[in-house]
This record gives sequence, C-alpha cells and structure tokens, in this order.
Amino acid sequence: MTTTIVSADLPGQRVSELDNKHVFHSWSAQDLVDALPVSTASGASFTDYEGNTYLDFGSQLVNLNLGHQHPRLVQALQDQAGKLATIQPAFANDARSELARLITEAAPGSLNHVFFTNGGADANEHAVRMARLHTGRKKVMSQYRSYHGATATAISLTGDPRRWPNDPGDPSVVHFFGPYTYRSAFWAGDAEEECQRALQHLEEQIVFEGASTIAAIIIETVVGTNGILVPPEGYLPGVRALCDKYGILYIADEVMTGFGRTGTMFAVENFNVEPDLMTFAKGVNSGYVPLGGVVLSDAVRDTFATTAYPGGLTYSGHPLACAVGVETFAVFKDEHILERTRQLGDEVVAPFLAELVEKYECVGEVRGLGLFWAVELVRDRTTREPLVPFNPNAEENIPMLRIGAACKAAGLWPMIQQNRIHIAPPLIISEKDLRRGLAIIEEAINTAC
Amino acid sequence: MTTTIVSADLPGQRVSELDNKHVFHSWSAQDLVDALPVSTASGASFTDYEGNTYLDFGSQLVNLNLGHQHPRLVQALQDQAGKLATIQPAFANDARSELARLITEAAPGSLNHVFFTNGGADANEHAVRMARLHTGRKKVMSQYRSYHGATATAISLTGDPRRWPNDPGDPSVVHFFGPYTYRSAFWAGDAEEECQRALQHLEEQIVFEGASTIAAIIIETVVGTNGILVPPEGYLPGVRALCDKYGILYIADEVMTGFGRTGTMFAVENFNVEPDLMTFAKGVNSGYVPLGGVVLSDAVRDTFATTAYPGGLTYSGHPLACAVGVETFAVFKDEHILERTRQLGDEVVAPFLAELVEKYECVGEVRGLGLFWAVELVRDRTTREPLVPFNPNAEENIPMLRIGAACKAAGLWPMIQQNRIHIAPPLIISEKDLRRGLAIIEEAINTAC
Repeated sequence: MTTTIVSADLPGQRVSELDNKHVFHSWSAQDLVDALPVSTASGASFTDYEGNTYLDFGSQLVNLNLGHQHPRLVQALQDQAGKLATIQPAFANDARSELARLITEAAPGSLNHVFFTNGGADANEHAVRMARLHTGRKKVMSQYRSYHGATATAISLTGDPRRWPNDPGDPSVVHFFGPYTYRSAFWAGDAEEECQRALQHLEEQIVFEGASTIAAIIIETVVGTNGILVPPEGYLPGVRALCDKYGILYIADEVMTGFGRTGTMFAVENFNVEPDLMTFAKGVNSGYVPLGGVVLSDAVRDTFATTAYPGGLTYSGHPLACAVGVETFAVFKDEHILERTRQLGDEVVAPFLAELVEKYECVGEVRGLGLFWAVELVRDRTTREPLVPFNPNAEENIPMLRIGAACKAAGLWPMIQQNRIHIAPPLIISEKDLRRGLAIIEEAINTAC
Repeated sequence: MTTTIVSADLPGQRVSELDNKHVFHSWSAQDLVDALPVSTASGASFTDYEGNTYLDFGSQLVNLNLGHQHPRLVQALQDQAGKLATIQPAFANDARSELARLITEAAPGSLNHVFFTNGGADANEHAVRMARLHTGRKKVMSQYRSYHGATATAISLTGDPRRWPNDPGDPSVVHFFGPYTYRSAFWAGDAEEECQRALQHLEEQIVFEGASTIAAIIIETVVGTNGILVPPEGYLPGVRALCDKYGILYIADEVMTGFGRTGTMFAVENFNVEPDLMTFAKGVNSGYVPLGGVVLSDAVRDTFATTAYPGGLTYSGHPLACAVGVETFAVFKDEHILERTRQLGDEVVAPFLAELVEKYECVGEVRGLGLFWAVELVRDRTTREPLVPFNPNAEENIPMLRIGAACKAAGLWPMIQQNRIHIAPPLIISEKDLRRGLAIIEEAINTAC
C-alpha cells in the first residue's frame, strides 16, 4: 500500500477529478457522469465550488425534510459522536430506545415495534421477509409505477424501468396497476370510479394469483418518484379490507412520505388506514446519517416472539443515526413542521399550481399533498400525450432537459422525472423561497413549452 | 400524533424497558432478548449502566478496528457534521472523492473505482449484479461456511444456518466447499493436499454447473463468522486461475477482513491475488457511520461506461461516513496500525494460543492472522468432535454459554460462534489489554472444559 493522506478539504477541480476517476455513480453511465461538486449547504439551499447557490427543490433525494445543516440536528449529531458513535445491535442504547418509542407512538394503531435498517431498500426487504414468515406464503404484490429500492427483492418489487435490467429477479413478486385518475388503466371517468375499478382490478388479480399464495401487498402511500400519485380517498382503506378478507399483510412503504412530507407524520394518516408493516428511511433523520426501518404490528412481532427472526445487520439501530432521529421529532414539534407543511401546501403550492393549469396548455395536471407535488407536462391537453415519452432516450428527453437547464440557470435545482416536475423542497423552506422557486419553475415552463 | 419528546439521555432501566418494548432485534427470538444497555465506551472497552467495563474482544461485530471513540475519528465526524452532513450521490463531494482515491490506491491492481453502499450486504448485492451484467451470466458460486449479509441475494449467498429460514431464495446461487484442513471435506491429510483437492473439487463443480452459466465466485478472503478459516497459501491464486480459465469473475468479500484486520490493508494482499470485484464495510470507518462499498476493476467499470449501471441508493458515498473513512487512513498511517496488528498477532496471540493447544485437551485447533483468530473447542481431540454440535439448540449449547458467562464475569465480552471462541479485538488494543483478555479466555476454557 502506498497512499498519500491529505485532508478532504480539496479544491473543487480536484473533487471533480477524483470523482471522475474513482467514484462509481448510482444509476449512471459512468463516462457520461459530470457531477456538480457541492461545497456548502444551508437550509433549503446548497452552493457549488464556483459560488452558485441553488434552491433545493428535491430535498436531495426527498430525504432532507429538515433542510441542510439544521443547527439542532448537527448539534445532536456532534453530541452523540462525542458520547457514543456506535454500538452493535445486540446491546441496548438510549438513542435507539428513545427513537423506537417516538416512532411507534407516532405510528398508527398497534405498530409498536421498530426494526432498524440502513435505508429504505433493506427496510422493504425485511418487511417482505417478515410478511412471508408470518403468513407462511411467498408471493408479494406491488404496483407498476413504484420504486422500493435496489437490493434484490426491493428492485423486484419496483415497478419502473430501473427494474428491467435486473429481471428476472424474485420470482414471487407480481405487479398490478394502482389508481391514477389522469391516466386511468381502468377507463374510469373520475376519481371515485378510478378508486372502485382499481380495487375491483386488484381483487380480481388476487383471486387469479391465488389469495392463499399471497403474503403481502406493498404500496407507497403516495407514489413518489413514479408520479406523486395521491390515491383516491377510499383506495387504501379498500386495499386494507381486501387484505383482511384474504389474510394478506398490508405493507405501507413510507420511505419518501414518512416524517411530514405530506403534512402528517406518516402519509397513511391522511387515509385513515393502519398497515401491518410500515417502512421508513430518508425523513427519519433527514439523511444526516443513513437510517431506515420497519415498524411492525404486535401480531407480526409475535410471530418472532420465541422463534428467531432470520435477518439482521451490523448497523441496525445505529446510535448516531438514531440520535439525529430523536432530535428530528423535537424539531418537528418546536418548529410546527407538520402544520407549516400543510399550510404551505394548501395556501401556497396548491393555488399556484392550479393557476399553471389555467395558464399553460402544456400543464396537463398538477397533484400533491403537503410539500409533495407533481406538475405533469403534456404535448396535447386533449390526448394527454406526455411532453416526453415514457422512459425517454436522451434525444426524446430534450424538452425536459431544457426545463431543467432553465431552472438551474435561475438558481433552482429541480427534480425532474419523466414528463413531470416534482416539487419536494425541505419542509423548513421559507414561504419567500418557496414562492421564488415556484416562480422559477413557471418561467422555465413558460420558456420551454 | 401524541408524543412526548425527552432527551435520549435516559437512565439504564428506562433504556432497557424501551428496548424490550419497542426495539425489534436482529437474528433473535424477541421474547428472549435481554440486551445489555451500554452507556459509554473508549478504546478497546465499553461500560454498562451499572459501571461494569468489558474488554471488547469482538470489536462489536468485527467492525470497530480503531476502537471506541477514537478522538481523531470523532473529531473528523464532528467536523464533517458541521460542514456538510449529507449530499446526494449525484453530486461530487470532497470526502467521497478523497476516500475513493485512498481505497483504490490501497486496493491491488486495477481495482480503481468505488461504488459506495450502506454496508456489507448491499455491497455484495451490487457486486453480484455487476458481475452478472458484465459477464451476461446469472449463476454465482459461494462457499458453505460463509456469511455475506441478509438482504435477498446476500442471504442466498450465505452458507450458514441463517440462510435456511430464507430459502428458497436467489435460484442462481450454488454453494461449494472451501478448504478447511482441520475438518477437511476432501479427506486431505495436510494443508497442501487440502488446497489441491479443494481446487479440484471447485473445478469439477464449475464444470458440472456449466462454466458458461457462472458469472462469479464470491469468497470471504479469510472466512469470518464461520470459523476464521485462513485459506492454504495456494488456494486463492488457484481460484483466480480457475476464474480466468472459465471467464468467471472473482469477488473478494473483505467486509470483515478489510482495513487491517489480518495485518494488511486488505486480506487478499496476504495471498497475492487480485480480484475483479472487492467488497468492504465495517473497518472502512470502524462503523462510526454506516458505510460499505464495492471496488471495481477497470474492466468491470467499463461495462457501464456508456450503459447505465442499474442500481443505486440514496446514501451512496455519504459525506459523513466518507469523512471518517478518510481519517481512518490517516490514523492507520500515523499509528502504524498494520505493523502493530501483525506484530501483536505474531508475537502475542499466536504463541499464546499455541500454548493452549498444548495445555488443554479441549482445544482442538487455533488458527488466524493478524488480530483475527479462532480457538476451536472439541470434546475429543482424536475424533475432533466439536464441543457443541453444529447449530446447537440452547441445551446443547450450554458448554459454550458457560464459557461466555465466565468471560463476561471476568470483564471480557467474548465473540462465540458455534464451538469456537473468536478473537478479534480492536486493532488499537494495548498489548497489556490483549494479554489480559487472552488470560481471561484461558481461565474460562480451563474452568469449562
């Protein structure tokens, strides 16, 4: 080994050079990566090495719910680092115990137990394992238009193009279509009809897959990357009823929606449903330290009361990660995060986006909840043909790339997915910055469409 | 939501009460969990809430290579927390760039690219995916007596009882027997014969599985939890030659062995082999922040030069985790960690354990490298019948539980696996503490056998 150790405080050019040379990037063709080196960040903004500051309208990857460098989260992190940075899962730890209490008290019904993981993917993997062992069944149903992570079972659950190169994967995963009124798979005319037909479709698929073979149905409470699809009011209670009818477990994937994103602590609260298992990550500590987990109902937990649960990981319930999670709850309370998220969503984002639909032919639909919204762009309002086709190649994607470039040039880092602009800023964003960001998006749409 | 927020600084009794009530534990029957609440830790020791201090002879889960609360790692963590706690993988970051450089410079040959993950399990998942896409083949071979993690493909790779309740898993994983001279699967008389026969066996299995169907062979360089099995000198070069002969990729799992555990930065250096992919976690930053990764050869990386790699994760290359990794390299250099690990292994552990074999009939074999050793206990030296049977139930396991209890009573937290005591203290342990711990282990063996 011959290495020269230098401080990690490098000039921007060197950061880029080493990144290009040595860092292998997620979901990317490596020769095409040209990653912006980020130097500092604060609140709802981050700054590159040339001094350009961007409003972060994706909260990084929809994880930074309390924003960059929140002083109280940083302090909690530093305090825990000084006290006890890590301890293995077989011991008990105060930060871990306390975060488990806070999460279970915030979670609905009998969701009283937390299995901590490193992130959302392994949380979903373990939730599926728990459901399979609890029911003695193997099959799991998940939605087309979904993302559940990138480890083997998680990517099999996923219902978007990221799964394709990984197929065939877990052979016991079956996909179904969920509700999406604007592009109904069921020829429905409105949300109510969409809801009824989506449930009828799901039940028919359950029956033909063989209800007795199905361990679980996993659903993102509000579908995230695949469209910010807010389900019609009765859909999730309908799924819950189908699960009860057929002895299937309902797993709510709250990796993106958990911890305030939709204006409630968990998005299931919006729909009055109680899942059997609920997964989380991201917002639990704003991603300051990798953390995810599964919240288990008493019934599922009791399956492993005297029989060992066959799963685990070195960093389960990492004290550093949990300490930031505990402080996250305190900040939510003191800064009235849920209330302001609902208020900013209802009073600022919703009316602003509603106007976009009026003003621009290319804005087909806007939808969302709290600070979690999508602006869906179309070529033609009548046919609803998307502005770029599904899973566009680079050339087909030019219109969306142009919108992205316009946003960046105006100081906003947008979150663009397919033919949609997603709006998911940190929940601590000021009303002024939120309005500024929305105006930048409008201007980009105005220019590009 | 109704929650009362309190500080995470709880009394020990409350920590235990909340742990019992709300924390779901890895690999455990939940009703039988009685987790010791740990209050503080320093260097090679940790302390419970009643003031009992234990020498940590397992480095937690063989991750704490630089010990508890190393002041420089804590400082690096706190500094990075104050500067930039997190940034998403699509951006470039100084700590991430620098750690990638340091790892690739320390890694052999053309292992020049790092894909960062959250831990060892997802590192192995991604390494397998890369190998499959690089070769266009699906099957992966791994050893009986191995552990590769607990997500879907990782647990399928695993060759110990933790896999069983998860079967059937990834249908494209095939297990084979590796070398283990003391309990040869090949009726070998010595290490040289074991090596030759293990390679012959592996080649025969490759041929009968169909070489053209096999993407990769994954091997823990020194098998960890399943026995600290140091391979005979020629084995891994032989595996490398078989891989070359049949167009199969060689994945070295260095999750436990990486970062100094065996006295070299990566354990492959002991055997002069260059894998195509190498996975790591744990020792990279002593587990202060969850981190793992895959080191890719130029050739594997180039498969994804213009075609996107279909995998990723929110926390890939987490700045906080990487900053502690960068400081880890600096501490290794300044504190001569590799040199002292080799020296303590060769001059303290090896001779001490060799004497145990002389002194106690129940000590069947001792083996290891650096600060990574196993003491294998037997009922009968001639038949080599293990002191407790493979995968013992609670009653069968009483002899090992008794040894564990004796160690704890004397102030040492042992790592006991099956019929073995593993010795894997932090690499920064003082010679005095190391000798004290070894004496405690001898006394426990003396009493129990």
